[in-house]
Amino acid sequence: MPGEFDLIRRYFRDATRSRPDVLLGIDDDCALVQVPQDRVLAISSDTLVSGHHFTPDVDPEALGHKALAVNLSDLAAMGAEPAWASLCLTLPQADEAWLQAFMRGFARLADEYGVQLIGGDTTRGPLGIGVTVQGFVDPARALRRDGAREGDLIYVSGTLGDAGLALRVRQGEIPPGGDMRLLDERLDRPQPRVGLGRCLGTYSRCAIDISDGLAGDLGHICRQSRLGALLELERLPLSAAVRDRVRTSGDWSLPLSAGDDYELLFTVPAARQAEFEREAATWELPVTRIGFMQRGEGVRLHGAQGAQSDRWMRAYDHFRE
Amino acid sequence: MPGEFDLIRRYFRDATRSRPDVLLGIDDDCALVQVPQDRVLAISSDTLVSGHHFTPDVDPEALGHKALAVNLSDLAAMGAEPAWASLCLTLPQADEAWLQAFMRGFARLADEYGVQLIGGDTTRGPLGIGVTVQGFVDPARALRRDGAREGDLIYVSGTLGDAGLALRVRQGEIPPGGDMRLLDERLDRPQPRVGLGRCLGTYSRCAIDISDGLAGDLGHICRQSRLGALLELERLPLSAAVRDRVRTSGDWSLPLSAGDDYELLFTVPAARQAEFEREAATWELPVTRIGFMQRGEGVRLHGAQGAQSDRWMRAYDHFRE
Repeated sequence: MPGEFDLIRRYFRDATRSRPDVLLGIDDDCALVQVPQDRVLAISSDTLVSGHHFTPDVDPEALGHKALAVNLSDLAAMGAEPAWASLCLTLPQADEAWLQAFMRGFARLADEYGVQLIGGDTTRGPLGIGVTVQGFVDPARALRRDGAREGDLIYVSGTLGDAGLALRVRQGEIPPGGDMRLLDERLDRPQPRVGLGRCLGTYSRCAIDISDGLAGDLGHICRQSRLGALLELERLPLSAAVRDRVRTSGDWSLPLSAGDDYELLFTVPAARQAEFEREAATWELPVTRIGFMQRGEGVRLHGAQGAQSDRWMRAYDHFRE
Repeated sequence: MPGEFDLIRRYFRDATRSRPDVLLGIDDDCALVQVPQDRVLAISSDTLVSGHHFTPDVDPEALGHKALAVNLSDLAAMGAEPAWASLCLTLPQADEAWLQAFMRGFARLADEYGVQLIGGDTTRGPLGIGVTVQGFVDPARALRRDGAREGDLIYVSGTLGDAGLALRVRQGEIPPGGDMRLLDERLDRPQPRVGLGRCLGTYSRCAIDISDGLAGDLGHICRQSRLGALLELERLPLSAAVRDRVRTSGDWSLPLSAGDDYELLFTVPAARQAEFEREAATWELPVTRIGFMQRGEGVRLHGAQGAQSDRWMRAYDHFRE
């Protein structure tokens, strides 16, 4: 069994491309990197723990993808350009095949976004993954949770609840149905909306990525912007499978409070609606207007099921399970 | 039991000081920070796992200190000025007393070095701690592992093997003796040598912090500088307790290969020895010349016990246990 240093060297060093702004990579006490002069640095750290964020039998390649994707999603939600990542792996044993597959998934996504792996460590222990990503953003174009204004329109990218549906099918709570391959892909290989986030800076000052569920994440925007929000249920963009599920069960929890979608939720001033929607219509990834910011606090629902709304208002909360 | 968001807000937000270069702290998808124009960014990430780096019954305040200290030590070894930290905590339950003590230890050390906590997360799972620290360094003064030159003198700060002795006493392998309070302090609350690291840039191009043991860490310098090193055993700076242990047992493994010392190991060109030692004599923290870099590869020992040197040459290696 190879030593820690060998493992790190073998799989980390050549895992990702070399960027010219990396003066010193993974072989020293610290990495040394250069931030462009007219940009500020955006930083995000996330942990994935076995038995909590994924099952121990998860496909390691998908896990490598997802560990980086959820962090890139945070950069996307800030409108930042990804640059570097650090990876801290805790592994029960030095399983080379597992590590190789994990790094393949991680490196492929890193390469797609021009991200260089610049540091991290490997430790023996219960399987867990910590990733820190860093990128650049023009501070005048940063998408902050406190950037929403009264009357701003609320938009969301893609569709809502697909990952949650895949998870509940996998857990045996819902029978399979619809395009399961597509739903599984949404759960296992979320696509960080980096391109969208970088385009939004022209129109928006406020975004968040939907990791804990639409209602809970919109609640963060409300709290930090000191406003309320009204969501129009019938406008929520749903895939055919989620739409079927909502129609047959009358339960809106999948699009409202299932996490793991990693779509972007953002606001646009009403005065710029036409201009924004004209440009957005040319994008590959659809965005949908789903409500607006208003005076007050908290998220309100507008739609047939208003009376049941409380149950859907809970964000996915790790310590409240 | 409070929710994750409440826990984070309560203990993280006010844990450390506010720096003017932090545009956005822990309440958003990313932190936004500003790097000074004439500096590059130094980044280090480390993970501490229960049962591996510490026992589950560890004093949480000491653990909070150590989790940050080992990361600041990496910045010290690069000669960098600490600025920001992210903290990813995985906790088996939301134990408020534990978390409060942990954050007290973390925040006190952060405050001492002017470090602001800018991000992180809290997850339920087996106890583990991931810390990422960032700081600034003038790239012309960075202390790199590949910066040693043939003939450079090798120095080390403080004393060697104290933390290892405390650990072996705690594990029942060695009977207690000497000033155990001092030895325990060295193991539980290592002091990152940040001030020393920042002074060294005038004389040195090469340093590493001793986390895995003197011989192993000097081995990293040798490998990356493509040189060998000769260590003079009799010159190694030892506390009274470690000196006693070495004398009675004839075993040099404590100063040579016990980890967790977090002293700095660095090189100085021989031509600057007198000038360097004159200045170093005015420092509070002693530094000791212990050998020199030479042609060849690997670390050689000069001293009475040369024949047994192989046994001491193994770095502490997590996957070789």
